[in-house]
Amino acid sequence: MTILEEALKGNTTSEMLHIAESEKVDLKEVIRNVSKGIIAIMKRENYQPVGIGYPLRTKINVNLGTSSSAINIDEEFQKVEIAQKYGADTISDLSMGGEIDQIRKKILEISSVPITTVPIYPAVIEAGSTSNITEDLIFKVIEKQLKDGISSIVLHTGFNLDTLNEMKGKRIMKIVSKGGSLTASYMKLNDVENPFLTNFEYILELVKEYDIVLNLGNALRSGCIHDKVDEFQLSEIKTNNKLAKNANNAGIQVILESLGGHINAKDIIKWVQYHKELTNNRPLFVSGPLPIDTATGHDHIAAAIGGSFASGFGADYICAITPAEHLCLPSLEDIKQGVIACKIAAHAGDSMKFGLNHLFNDDLELSKNRFSKNWKKQFEYCIDSSEPKRRHPIDEEICSMCGAHCALSLSKKIL
Amino acid sequence: MTILEEALKGNTTSEMLHIAESEKVDLKEVIRNVSKGIIAIMKRENYQPVGIGYPLRTKINVNLGTSSSAINIDEEFQKVEIAQKYGADTISDLSMGGEIDQIRKKILEISSVPITTVPIYPAVIEAGSTSNITEDLIFKVIEKQLKDGISSIVLHTGFNLDTLNEMKGKRIMKIVSKGGSLTASYMKLNDVENPFLTNFEYILELVKEYDIVLNLGNALRSGCIHDKVDEFQLSEIKTNNKLAKNANNAGIQVILESLGGHINAKDIIKWVQYHKELTNNRPLFVSGPLPIDTATGHDHIAAAIGGSFASGFGADYICAITPAEHLCLPSLEDIKQGVIACKIAAHAGDSMKFGLNHLFNDDLELSKNRFSKNWKKQFEYCIDSSEPKRRHPIDEEICSMCGAHCALSLSKKIL
Repeated sequence: MTILEEALKGNTTSEMLHIAESEKVDLKEVIRNVSKGIIAIMKRENYQPVGIGYPLRTKINVNLGTSSSAINIDEEFQKVEIAQKYGADTISDLSMGGEIDQIRKKILEISSVPITTVPIYPAVIEAGSTSNITEDLIFKVIEKQLKDGISSIVLHTGFNLDTLNEMKGKRIMKIVSKGGSLTASYMKLNDVENPFLTNFEYILELVKEYDIVLNLGNALRSGCIHDKVDEFQLSEIKTNNKLAKNANNAGIQVILESLGGHINAKDIIKWVQYHKELTNNRPLFVSGPLPIDTATGHDHIAAAIGGSFASGFGADYICAITPAEHLCLPSLEDIKQGVIACKIAAHAGDSMKFGLNHLFNDDLELSKNRFSKNWKKQFEYCIDSSEPKRRHPIDEEICSMCGAHCALSLSKKIL
Repeated sequence: MTILEEALKGNTTSEMLHIAESEKVDLKEVIRNVSKGIIAIMKRENYQPVGIGYPLRTKINVNLGTSSSAINIDEEFQKVEIAQKYGADTISDLSMGGEIDQIRKKILEISSVPITTVPIYPAVIEAGSTSNITEDLIFKVIEKQLKDGISSIVLHTGFNLDTLNEMKGKRIMKIVSKGGSLTASYMKLNDVENPFLTNFEYILELVKEYDIVLNLGNALRSGCIHDKVDEFQLSEIKTNNKLAKNANNAGIQVILESLGGHINAKDIIKWVQYHKELTNNRPLFVSGPLPIDTATGHDHIAAAIGGSFASGFGADYICAITPAEHLCLPSLEDIKQGVIACKIAAHAGDSMKFGLNHLFNDDLELSKNRFSKNWKKQFEYCIDSSEPKRRHPIDEEICSMCGAHCALSLSKKIL
């Protein structure tokens, strides 16, 4: 039986137990929410599972992998380490350059968090072009990845040829999802329907044996704030929600990727709330959203703002965006900065979602040690302790910001 | 007559006209909002005035200046240039080290934006210690700064000895506002009342001739999220709001600094909305707020999140926080990163406050040029064009992020 089927029977699995204990959530609530498709659990053999959904801590995903024009395999492996060091809950291997099967196997070997893949990527590479892809090839790729031990796959299921025809001439940025545009390109060039949509039942059978999580991808996200959350994305959300119900009925857990890309802050709140209500609180994964377009080179900051608005109002799972977004493949340092910014966003979002619960114990301890000027202990509670240590010696009483006129020292004396 | 008095008579001044035109707001609304104390205008001789308040673009302030243990005067002057280059609307000179009168004069000489000061800082330096300050000295400092041509002063008016006595033993972080703790220290050590509060009417007379903006400071902001927005800060807000009414009645414009420091995201929204309602929409300046405590070394990102929540729900004026916050005096690079993060936050906040109005024309043009892969023009619309230029050659068709498999190229072809 799958985790979802166990939950429907009211059974406790080791994954549910781990999540209830590690996240300090009542076990019964975990079982109930898994059974309703509100929590999805990504398993990882020999390692801890990760739960995504209400009322769990907001999780963060980190994208990495080669591209056809930037293949530095060792660096990608180092990115895995950095991502995990700074708090990635899951990693997506998006490699499209070099020996991608070998890269995926190695990433699985050196990582300890659940790994997600996007099967259309290797399918394009194996076929040589989008037009040469076949359905058989897609299934072959999925099976290969399942056997390797991945925990989740992204399928861009939420649109068909009619959607693409209606989109013609509309939108400034057209389709900005890579997996979405590859799938759309295969469909249009061969004049065939969406292979993930038409074969959805078969895919459910394929993945059931491995009990992985299906991530229904956000192909039609808006690529600039002026494209807005339009009829096309809303139709994708509704289609994916229906498919999620079917998948859940078949015992397969689902995460819905929606509302990523670029959305102004007011609309982030509106559509995240709409999404959670429409989908009966299914796990919502957002990539971004960037509330403005003009932060290029600093998009990790724009994404931190958008991600905290989204998670604060209900999104369960957000994606690290690096300063290299829109410009080039991220460096190791970019990955570090992107993960830290995303971690800050998730924590801020949780302060909105849950108020000051046990998740904020580190903040409390940090503050007490800040007031007593125990820099060493203070830094231990930071999301990233390397940067504070670089800037302030742990054994000095004062900092150069206020020098002799420190508000803490003064107020300690008089209060 | 002061700007506020002119507005009350329905007269148009050159400042109001400039603000209406440059911000594309109806002149009548500008006059009406100035007359009601909803918009405050900072003047700057020979340079453009800056309007702060609804429905104007969110403004950003940049703090700089020496401390007693970090005196690199040339660097502080370079910070002025960097702050202005990256979009500071106003600058606060917080110098407490070196020849601070000379530093202030030079900053006024080389800058073109309104400059704010905190008179208690030089007063402490001139007196040698907080206990040696006298009221006469405070007034002397204020007069000196007014004559120099500053546009605004910060006075921590909102608390008295009773407040301090009641605070004893409470709060993890006590008082974290430097100006607030210096003022409190002077009061407690001399057992005297708040000099800015007891002499408020006299201060109004002093500043009226120069028609500067009074910034009523946020001495009692919470220094960690667990200190919350407590009775002490609420009492400060109410006191300052009453003083703002008195000042407005005397023809003096006021900005209320409140809700800075550290506040969890849920409370930021709640208290900003409360503040705007309580004060009849008076200009609200927030410093931070940081929605979490554990981002030390990356507090510019936490502040960008908090600042966008605050401005999105009503704050009119936010303050750049640098990565050096809580650790050391910021470097030139820190100032740059802090200003850019704050600029992103203000713009995201405006997308919440106003939706996609004319303020988002750059975002639109950037997106069009992004789709057509005109990198050169695209970068011109960025908040910071230096970082994108460093990462991507303007004459190359593709970027290394997606390599040959670019979503834009693919979707352009098929849609």
